[in-house]
Amino acid sequence: MGLHEVTLRPGFWQRRQHTSRTASFDHIEHWLERAGWLGNFGATVEGRRGREFSDSEVYKYLEALAWAGDPAYEDRFHAIVARVAAVQQPDGYLNTNFGRPGQAARYSDLEWGHELYCYGHLIQAGVARARTHGHDDLVTVAVRAADHVCDTFGPDGIGSVCGHAEIEPALVELYRVTGNRRYLDQARLFVERRGRQVLDDIEFGRAYFQDDMPIREARVLRGHAVRAVYLASGAVDVAVETGDTELLEAVARQWRATVARRTYLTGGIGSRHQDEAFGDDFVLPPDRAYQETCAGVGSIMLAWRLLLAEGNPRYADLIERVLFNVIATSPSDDGTRFFYTNTLHQRVPGIEPAADTLVPRAASSLRAPWYAVSCCMTNLARTFSSLAAYLATTDDDGGVQLHQYTPASIRVGDIGLDIDTEYPADGRVTIRVVSAPETAWTLTLRIPHWATEATLDGVPVAPGLAAVRRRFTAGDTLVLDLAVRPRLTFPDARIDAVRGNAAVERGPVVYCLESLDLPPGLTVDTVRLDPAAEPVDRDGAVIVTGHIHPGHDTSWPYGPPPAPSLADSVEIPLHPYHRWARRGPSTMRVWLPTT
Amino acid sequence: MGLHEVTLRPGFWQRRQHTSRTASFDHIEHWLERAGWLGNFGATVEGRRGREFSDSEVYKYLEALAWAGDPAYEDRFHAIVARVAAVQQPDGYLNTNFGRPGQAARYSDLEWGHELYCYGHLIQAGVARARTHGHDDLVTVAVRAADHVCDTFGPDGIGSVCGHAEIEPALVELYRVTGNRRYLDQARLFVERRGRQVLDDIEFGRAYFQDDMPIREARVLRGHAVRAVYLASGAVDVAVETGDTELLEAVARQWRATVARRTYLTGGIGSRHQDEAFGDDFVLPPDRAYQETCAGVGSIMLAWRLLLAEGNPRYADLIERVLFNVIATSPSDDGTRFFYTNTLHQRVPGIEPAADTLVPRAASSLRAPWYAVSCCMTNLARTFSSLAAYLATTDDDGGVQLHQYTPASIRVGDIGLDIDTEYPADGRVTIRVVSAPETAWTLTLRIPHWATEATLDGVPVAPGLAAVRRRFTAGDTLVLDLAVRPRLTFPDARIDAVRGNAAVERGPVVYCLESLDLPPGLTVDTVRLDPAAEPVDRDGAVIVTGHIHPGHDTSWPYGPPPAPSLADSVEIPLHPYHRWARRGPSTMRVWLPTT
Repeated sequence: MGLHEVTLRPGFWQRRQHTSRTASFDHIEHWLERAGWLGNFGATVEGRRGREFSDSEVYKYLEALAWAGDPAYEDRFHAIVARVAAVQQPDGYLNTNFGRPGQAARYSDLEWGHELYCYGHLIQAGVARARTHGHDDLVTVAVRAADHVCDTFGPDGIGSVCGHAEIEPALVELYRVTGNRRYLDQARLFVERRGRQVLDDIEFGRAYFQDDMPIREARVLRGHAVRAVYLASGAVDVAVETGDTELLEAVARQWRATVARRTYLTGGIGSRHQDEAFGDDFVLPPDRAYQETCAGVGSIMLAWRLLLAEGNPRYADLIERVLFNVIATSPSDDGTRFFYTNTLHQRVPGIEPAADTLVPRAASSLRAPWYAVSCCMTNLARTFSSLAAYLATTDDDGGVQLHQYTPASIRVGDIGLDIDTEYPADGRVTIRVVSAPETAWTLTLRIPHWATEATLDGVPVAPGLAAVRRRFTAGDTLVLDLAVRPRLTFPDARIDAVRGNAAVERGPVVYCLESLDLPPGLTVDTVRLDPAAEPVDRDGAVIVTGHIHPGHDTSWPYGPPPAPSLADSVEIPLHPYHRWARRGPSTMRVWLPTT
Repeated sequence: MGLHEVTLRPGFWQRRQHTSRTASFDHIEHWLERAGWLGNFGATVEGRRGREFSDSEVYKYLEALAWAGDPAYEDRFHAIVARVAAVQQPDGYLNTNFGRPGQAARYSDLEWGHELYCYGHLIQAGVARARTHGHDDLVTVAVRAADHVCDTFGPDGIGSVCGHAEIEPALVELYRVTGNRRYLDQARLFVERRGRQVLDDIEFGRAYFQDDMPIREARVLRGHAVRAVYLASGAVDVAVETGDTELLEAVARQWRATVARRTYLTGGIGSRHQDEAFGDDFVLPPDRAYQETCAGVGSIMLAWRLLLAEGNPRYADLIERVLFNVIATSPSDDGTRFFYTNTLHQRVPGIEPAADTLVPRAASSLRAPWYAVSCCMTNLARTFSSLAAYLATTDDDGGVQLHQYTPASIRVGDIGLDIDTEYPADGRVTIRVVSAPETAWTLTLRIPHWATEATLDGVPVAPGLAAVRRRFTAGDTLVLDLAVRPRLTFPDARIDAVRGNAAVERGPVVYCLESLDLPPGLTVDTVRLDPAAEPVDRDGAVIVTGHIHPGHDTSWPYGPPPAPSLADSVEIPLHPYHRWARRGPSTMRVWLPTT
C-alpha cells in the first residue's frame, strides 16, 4: 500500500516516527556535516574523510527525507542532491573514495570498496523520490548511476559483484518505477553471479559476502547478516519480477531455516562481533549478541518482500517481532542516540558516551550519538519514514489485509478504515469502517502466532489469518482482542547458550530484567526464575517469581556438582527489552536461569 | 633449573619435543622462506611481504633453535642470524616494515606497528642463545637493539609503549644475562607507562592493549589475551628484580581473578574472536572459544614466573592444565600442522585445509599448515624446545621441587633423579635417586588439586605440596600415585554458556566427544549425559552413560517448555581433547548437556 494511503495516528509507532522525522533528521545532518561525509562531495582527495562507504549514509538520509516528504525539509533535500550531483562524472560514475588521481582506481577493490553498494542506496533514494514526488533531480542522478552500472557490469563487462549486496534490490525497484527492463536484467545478473567465487577469499571467508555458493543452492542465510538479507531481498525482487518460482522458493527456504535456527528471540539476527555474521545453527548467545540494528532493517525488507510474494502471516509475525524488539530498541527517546548492536545480556553497567562524541566502535554499552560506522541511524530513519507502508496490503480481489496493529487511517480506493488501539500494551484493536464500496469484500486480519486466545468480536480466532467477507457499511466496527498477557518462553534444547533459561514475553514484546529494578548491590546474574510461577502484570511491569543466588567465589570455577542452595522467594519486575538502558547504566538479562 | 640440568626421556612430552625439534623446525623454515618473511631481511621496500609483525616469527624460530641447541641446525641458525644482522641500522634500529623511504616512519604507529614487540622476540632469542651457548652474533644484535630501545624510549625519549607487550619481559631477561641495569630500568618504565592512555583509542578500546588503566590498579586480566599475559609476565619480572612486592601482588591478584572467572576448563584463555580478547567475568562460551595457542604459551610464561616468585603449587597446576589441554592440542602428530584457535565445540565437521596452503584466517576447522598470521607454531616450537625447564626447581636450601610429571633425568649439583611414569595415562610416578649429597635435603612434590586420593609410598597425601626431608641414598625410590581416574566436572553456576552441562576429566586431561565415536548420522549435539552414572575407563577411552535426543525441527525455536522425551540409555566413549580432530573431520563437544 502506498504511503499516501496509510497514515499513522498517535500511538506507539507514530511517536517514534515523529521523533525520527524531526530530531533524528536534524541530528543526522549535523553529524554528516561534522564527520565530513557530506563535505566529501566536493572535497579534495586529501580532504576526504570517513570510511569507504560513507557516501551511502548521505543517500540513506536522502531516502528518509524522500519518504517523509516533509515540505519543511525540501530545501535541505535539494541542497544535498545538488552537492551529490555535482560530483557525478560524465559517464555516471559517482563515488568520493575512488577513481581520482591519488585514489585507488574505480572497481579495484570490489571486496571492500562498496562502490556498487553506495549506488544501491543512491538508487533507493531516487526510487523513494520517484514514488513520493515524481521524476526530479535526484531521480536523474540515480538513473545515470544505474545506467553506468549496467554499462560497466553487464554481460560483457566486469564479471563480478559488490562485496556488499544492495545494488540488487535497488535496481529492481528502479525497474519498477521506470519500466526499464535493463535494470531488472542487471539485478538478475548480479544475483546469479554471486556465489561462484568471483570475489577474493578474505579473512572471514567468502561466505561473509555470500560468494561461497550460488543462492539457489544455499540452505540457510549465512555470513555478514546485513549483506545476507539485502541480497536475499534483491533475489526475491528478481524472482517476483521474472516469475522465477525456483529462486523464490530457494530464498523462502533459507528464510525458514534462518528463522528456525539462527534468529534471536527478539527477531534480531547476527551472533558474531568479529564479522557481524550469523553463527552456525542454534549459536545464539545472548552475551554480545550482535543483532545489528541494520540487520533488523534488512530482515524487515526481506520478510516484507516474502509476505507480498506468498501472503503467509509468518512473515508479518517476524516483522512485528523485529519492529518491537530491534527497531524500537535502538534509538533513544529523543532520537539523537542509538544502539548499533543490541546485546541481550549486559554484565557490567554501561558507560554513557559523552554528548556530541563519535564512538570508534560498533558496540557501545549505552546508546551513542554517532559511530565511526553509523549505518544504523540513517537506516532507522528511512524505516521510520516508510513505516506506514508495512501495515496493510490490498489484493486483486479488492480486499484489505491488516498485518500490523497500531493507530492508523487507511484510505484505499473506496475503502476507509480507522484503527485504534493501545497495542502492544493492550491487546484490543478496534477497526472502524469509515467508507466502503457497495459490494462485498474481504478484510483479513493477522492473528499472531502467540495469540492463542484471540477473539474477533468475541468469537475465538486461531493464530494465522482471520478473514471476514461481507458488505461493510460506514460505521461498522470490528473488535479484535489479541489477549495480550505475559507468558514464559523456553528455548529449543539445541540453543546451548540459553539452556536452562526462560524469558518473558507479553504479546509481541520481549521483556528483560535490569539491575535498577533489583535491591542495590545485586546484579541480574544472581536471579533464578521459578518456572512454575505465572508471570503477572502490575503497574506497567511484568512480575515474575524467583530467588536470589549470589554465587560464591572459588579459586577454580569447575568441580563437583554444587550443592543446591535454598533462598527465599522474591518478586522480580521486568520491563520491555526495548525500554532497556533508558534510565541510566544497568546490568540486564533477557534470559533468566530457572531454578 | 637450566636446560642442561633436566633432560626429557621417552614419554608423552619427549615425543612431542622431538617432533617439534625436527619436523616442525623444517616446516617452519620452509614456510618462513615461502611466505617471504625470512626474505624480508634484505628485500626491497616493494618486495616486503607479510604482516607488520612477521619479523617476530623469524626471531621466535631463532629462539626455538637456540633452546634446542641441536648442532645439526647450527649452520641454519647462523645463516639466519647473518640475514637479520645485515639489516640492522647503525643506531641499532631493526625492522623490515618501517623507516625506509616508501615505508611509514619509525614508531609512527605504536598502536599497531609492533616494532617493540619484534625487538622483544629478538631479544628473547638472544637471551636463549646467551643462556645455552654464550655471547655470540645473535646476542650482539639483540644487545644493540635493546640499547637502541633504551636510547629512544628512555625517560627523556618517546613517552609511550608498544601496542603489543613483549619487550618488557625480554628486557628483564636481557638484564639477567648481561647484568646491565639499564634494561631493567627501561622495562620498568614501559610497565609503569602503560595504562595511562598513552596509545590512541581504537575500535577495540584501549583495554585491548592494556592501556586502559595502570597495571597496579587492575583487578583482572583483560583485553587481548596474549598481550595481557606477556605484559603481566614482564611486570612479574620487574617486580622480582626490583623487590616490588606491591607490583607482584597486583599481578598475582589479577592472575587469581583470571583463573577463577576468565579461564576455560582446559586452562585456555581468550573468549572472543573479534579482538582475540578475554570476555567479561564468566563469559566462557565453548562455541568458538578462541583460546589462542599463543595465549596458552603466554599463560605458562606468566604462571611460571609467579611460581618462581611465590612457590604456590596452584601456578604449576595451571601450567599442567595448559600443557595437556592447549599445548598438546594444537600441533598435529607429525608437527607440520596446527590449531591457531582451540574451540571447545565443533558443530559442523571440519574441512581439511589443502597441503602446503596458507589459511587466510586464524580459525581453521582442522589443523592447518600455515596461516596469514602464524604466530602459534613458532611459539609452540620455542615452548617445546625449553619444556624441560618447567619440570623442576631448586631452592636456596638445596632442595628440589618437582612440578610436572613426565619421564626425565634431573642432574643438579650432587642430586640426580630419574623419573619414570606413563602419566597422564596412569597416575603412578616413580622417582629414583641416582645420586645425592651426604646431607639431608627436601624433595617436594606437587600434588595436583584434583588428586584427592593420591598416595606417596602408599601413604595418603593431600593436594598441594608433599615434602620429604631426609638423607637420600642412590637407589632410593619413591612412588607417587596420583590415582588418575575419570571424573565428572560441573561448571560454576555463573558460567552461562555451559549451564546444565558436565565435562569429563581424567587426571589433568580434559576429555571430549567426537561424532566419529557415535553411530553414523548422529551429531554430538544430540547427546545427553546422565550425571548420576560414574564414568569408567575402557580401552583407552572413558565411557559415560547418556541418552540420544535428536531434537525436532520447529518453525520457531522458542515457546512453551518442551515435553521431556524418554530415550534408552547408551554408552558413549570420550577421548582426550588434545587428541581431537586427529582421525579426520568430526563434530565435537567438551561440555555435554546433562539429563
